[in-house]
Amino acid sequence: MNEKYFSTRASVRDFSDREIPSVLLEKILEEASHAPNTGNMQLYSVVVSRDPEMKRQLAPLHFSQPASLKADVILTVCADVCRFSRWARLSDADPGFDNPLSFISAMTDAVILAQQITTIAELNGLGTCYLGTVTYNAEKISDLLRLPELVVPVACLALGYPASEPVSCERLSTSAWVHSETYRDDSDERIMEEFRAKDDYVPNRRFVEENGKKTLAQVFCDVRYPRSMNEEFSKGFVELLRKKGFLL
Amino acid sequence: MNEKYFSTRASVRDFSDREIPSVLLEKILEEASHAPNTGNMQLYSVVVSRDPEMKRQLAPLHFSQPASLKADVILTVCADVCRFSRWARLSDADPGFDNPLSFISAMTDAVILAQQITTIAELNGLGTCYLGTVTYNAEKISDLLRLPELVVPVACLALGYPASEPVSCERLSTSAWVHSETYRDDSDERIMEEFRAKDDYVPNRRFVEENGKKTLAQVFCDVRYPRSMNEEFSKGFVELLRKKGFLL
Repeated sequence: MNEKYFSTRASVRDFSDREIPSVLLEKILEEASHAPNTGNMQLYSVVVSRDPEMKRQLAPLHFSQPASLKADVILTVCADVCRFSRWARLSDADPGFDNPLSFISAMTDAVILAQQITTIAELNGLGTCYLGTVTYNAEKISDLLRLPELVVPVACLALGYPASEPVSCERLSTSAWVHSETYRDDSDERIMEEFRAKDDYVPNRRFVEENGKKTLAQVFCDVRYPRSMNEEFSKGFVELLRKKGFLL
Repeated sequence: MNEKYFSTRASVRDFSDREIPSVLLEKILEEASHAPNTGNMQLYSVVVSRDPEMKRQLAPLHFSQPASLKADVILTVCADVCRFSRWARLSDADPGFDNPLSFISAMTDAVILAQQITTIAELNGLGTCYLGTVTYNAEKISDLLRLPELVVPVACLALGYPASEPVSCERLSTSAWVHSETYRDDSDERIMEEFRAKDDYVPNRRFVEENGKKTLAQVFCDVRYPRSMNEEFSKGFVELLRKKGFLL
């Protein structure tokens, strides 16, 4: 393994036409399943989209972002307590996983699995990209993939061979997000200092200019993740949790 | 890297007295921050517990499970939109992250980070164990670590040098949790077949006997994760989300 892998990795949004061998995909998924999970209940499922027609229908639900259009494989990773609950009922037990805490546990299992898939895929030469849009259109994705009760999509990965070398981007210094013993109440000056590298990063300055904004934060809050959008998609996601049986 | 690392890894609950060098912990955290995250907003924080008195207070909030008592370092990984929102307001922007969707995004970032920390720590010879109890007593943990608004603990890792070689445990076959194109509606027979290896696994059969139950599923549903417990902790966690400002 490249010693610098973890500190230089980057997401890939541009994929070549080369197909991922099924045997490699299977190996990645099998190895990833040895990741930690809640009580070894493995409260997750993965729906593999390879069929061109399914990918064509899935892409607009991810706003047709480049990674969703060019990926060879789309993996929709779901919080799933359905399988475990069915087994429990068939085994003379009363499964009590239809509640918010169990959703949080299953989502944790699913996201851990997604990240383990990411690492193993990248170490095997694949490019990966999370499609955060999975929670925006979770209900439509759930309908397309025919997810039953107690199964909710929470992470999505686009996979393929990279068409070009991805460029890793800047990160906050650990001093910004690591706290010793208790959460540090930073001064305004320190907060601004922590984000200075992001504010000064040349591609970020270009975003600000291109969007006609004054600050990088305005690009995030007005353009990329505006309150109205977050609140609208929040309602949809909570409604889906209710529909799937996860709210009390 | 050991070729078999991913398929043989196991959580560690029994740690030696050997301390984790601060420089190694810092390296692990820095490398992990290159994991994918939402829009490069890095919506997470980590509170490091090393002080014996803080660890003494933290352990009962994790039901004094062995890993919480013997760990050299406890990392509480939090979904955090507080820092980003403060920076946004200081940058003449209106942050709209006080909603369920933003919590889900931040939780995703936090869990991805936690799993990246796990992998890097294990590849550096450390043992790790998730403490799922972090969401059970999230409010008390939040109080102890003095977490502000818009910051919620979602994952917790016990770290240390292993006292003994951990034994990896059984997993469901990929055929149980990987679905092609759409979610497969398994027959009852197939569900039971998928869990057969778990039902037959010798340590699991011992659990059933020790707990005076008839099936493994009854151990999970009556003893380890009973409905009443899940529902009680669900109420606490949802109440914490409300208190921290994440509900609409």
